[in-house]
Amino acid sequence: MMDEARLLEHFRQLGPASAAESVLLPLPPGDDMALLHPPAGDLLLAVDQVVEGRHVDLRVARLEEVAHKAVHRCLSDVAAMAGRPLAALYAATLPRSFTDDDARRLGDALHAVSRTAGTLPAGGDVAVHAADDGPLVLSVTVIALAHPLGSPRRSDARPGDLVCVTGVLGGTLHADGRGPHLSFEARIAEGAALRDRFGDRLGAMIDLSDGLGRDAGHLARASGVAIEIEAARIPVRDGLDWRRGAGDGEDHELLFTLRPEVEADHLVPDEVCGTSVSVIGRVLGRSGGELPLVVIRDEDGIGHDGADFGWVHR
Amino acid sequence: MMDEARLLEHFRQLGPASAAESVLLPLPPGDDMALLHPPAGDLLLAVDQVVEGRHVDLRVARLEEVAHKAVHRCLSDVAAMAGRPLAALYAATLPRSFTDDDARRLGDALHAVSRTAGTLPAGGDVAVHAADDGPLVLSVTVIALAHPLGSPRRSDARPGDLVCVTGVLGGTLHADGRGPHLSFEARIAEGAALRDRFGDRLGAMIDLSDGLGRDAGHLARASGVAIEIEAARIPVRDGLDWRRGAGDGEDHELLFTLRPEVEADHLVPDEVCGTSVSVIGRVLGRSGGELPLVVIRDEDGIGHDGADFGWVHR
Repeated sequence: MMDEARLLEHFRQLGPASAAESVLLPLPPGDDMALLHPPAGDLLLAVDQVVEGRHVDLRVARLEEVAHKAVHRCLSDVAAMAGRPLAALYAATLPRSFTDDDARRLGDALHAVSRTAGTLPAGGDVAVHAADDGPLVLSVTVIALAHPLGSPRRSDARPGDLVCVTGVLGGTLHADGRGPHLSFEARIAEGAALRDRFGDRLGAMIDLSDGLGRDAGHLARASGVAIEIEAARIPVRDGLDWRRGAGDGEDHELLFTLRPEVEADHLVPDEVCGTSVSVIGRVLGRSGGELPLVVIRDEDGIGHDGADFGWVHR
Repeated sequence: MMDEARLLEHFRQLGPASAAESVLLPLPPGDDMALLHPPAGDLLLAVDQVVEGRHVDLRVARLEEVAHKAVHRCLSDVAAMAGRPLAALYAATLPRSFTDDDARRLGDALHAVSRTAGTLPAGGDVAVHAADDGPLVLSVTVIALAHPLGSPRRSDARPGDLVCVTGVLGGTLHADGRGPHLSFEARIAEGAALRDRFGDRLGAMIDLSDGLGRDAGHLARASGVAIEIEAARIPVRDGLDWRRGAGDGEDHELLFTLRPEVEADHLVPDEVCGTSVSVIGRVLGRSGGELPLVVIRDEDGIGHDGADFGWVHR
């Protein structure tokens, strides 16, 4: 059982960051809030959680991996908005079984992961469960600077757009509970670079968390369009079947659309910031009625409803 | 057992707030982040948690009270920094026993409490425990605008300052688990008004969460000073003994210091924004050695160590 007062003191000494880092102003350890001097521009805000038993299994994931996943889940939202992360705050409710060392490792890892991703630790809160078997609950809030050319939205897809995805999909959760869902890197540089390079010829953008089929559906619904994906063009990890690429969750790659002029000008990229880009389909007008928002067409020309590929909610 | 997809949709429809409210830009429901157009100035950031069994007992507190406490705990940090709240984000991990109606009531209450306090709901995240008996865990992050005259800090007390406190203290937690700890209002208007009125003649400021004795110690330690408090001048609720006023936690009143010139100019206030102000002591130089940081002197002239009054950590 840890010493909570000592633990809080340790967390306080870790953050907020020093004045030398320009956006965070110096405050004595233990002051109530962090003071942020943001660059000019609009800010993006998001919060995300990792809950033991739901998003991570502490029997197979190290605390450093839990911290990595918690921070990068939230940063993946920043990537989808083409933002630049500025600062992160953490709130942790710890199991009673945590030792001082466990708690310090988690706090140190949250700070280290954030810094590596260019995000300044701006403080946090820690509590310990009253119940003996309460699970680890970790929330991360990120404040980011919006892209000066505007934030791409889910609703920005138009008929005729190309549908593209970064990286490779599927196989994120291995049978033993490990796998890429513990180590993915939010595509922050890629998201911003796509806006830099294509400006308003970049249409809608979303990060893949629920699985390609369902997330493409979110994008289609918000944009009032339909999407057709060619199964054979879905980039899959390790030779997996396309169904796994379309249906596995927690890829945290970027799904985005490009205006048809990009294709006409022969500017469709095959990589961005060293990450592969695949064109997997096309945005269509929505004809209404009962047709699926997303159709995945297999090599035999048979259409599958995208809503059948993905996780309802994790 | 609730329908998580429907619940998420309900939360999404609640926020972010609309464009008419100036600081939050419109985003279609379900977009990944809220977009904030902040007024010019530095920003303050804080996160705080409410954990069932630790900070609230759901057998005696209504969900609306839980939401109130979660938001106002965080806003109390804003008050201590004389800030103006702009936006709040929420993350909730819900017990499996929650019904759809429970979850909606909690979400609606978080939004309503924030709006009433002038804080725009900027989105959130909701998850459900995997374990059958996982307790409610609620974290609230607040983004606030720093006061243009600067943020008062714990380290800003100087020898000679008057020590003052807002409101009345003690008796926050009744034997039945209810009491003012469920209904306190963060002193946001008061904190900002003190800076407005006194400028740099307002010294250090802190909100009382651990109890007057211990929180005065935090202020004294950060400022490198000692504090002497007269027990008879501690404003207590309902005729309680001064020991309860000095030792009970979760008052969420403001403890602050005023420069001696304020007294010389006969400008010591007896109220701010309709809330009473009491002068309870004086800041002294720290002589070093083993003397307590805070001495509370009773009516017989006997000094008590302030560190003995308060909660170590809740």
